[in-house]
Amino acid sequence: MIKARVTVTLKNGVLDPQGKAIKGALSSLGFEGVGHVRQGKVFDLEIEERDRSKAEADIKAMCEKLLANTVIENYTIAFE
Amino acid sequence: MIKARVTVTLKNGVLDPQGKAIKGALSSLGFEGVGHVRQGKVFDLEIEERDRSKAEADIKAMCEKLLANTVIENYTIAFE
Repeated sequence: MIKARVTVTLKNGVLDPQGKAIKGALSSLGFEGVGHVRQGKVFDLEIEERDRSKAEADIKAMCEKLLANTVIENYTIAFE
Repeated sequence: MIKARVTVTLKNGVLDPQGKAIKGALSSLGFEGVGHVRQGKVFDLEIEERDRSKAEADIKAMCEKLLANTVIENYTIAFE
């Protein structure tokens, strides 16, 4: 079994109102000096597969089809 | 300026209905052999601070106060 972590983040230039709200909340909590905040998602997947390159190809397909919106998001795949 | 990535994941044993839904969606898309799926969050922060240990202490406080619900979530901090 292979464990992988997919990290999905917004592409540069895509507005992130959620990140902006978090920045505002941090400021109002007294944290000064917080610049940009961007929020993304992580998915921890367990794949029942022994061949890592096969698993990577599968996970890429999952990202393209479901996990990421590749118009506005980037994704990275890391294996544990 | 220091860039940091905070990753927030559900603690073991905490139910993750969102992860379960994603697993179901992947199965219905034809991806077999997907075991557990857990979803988490990432925050990419820019901190206007030069001292990394000071920045780390600040980010820990942000996690405890706002970014993570430490009753049910773990967080990790990584610097770029």
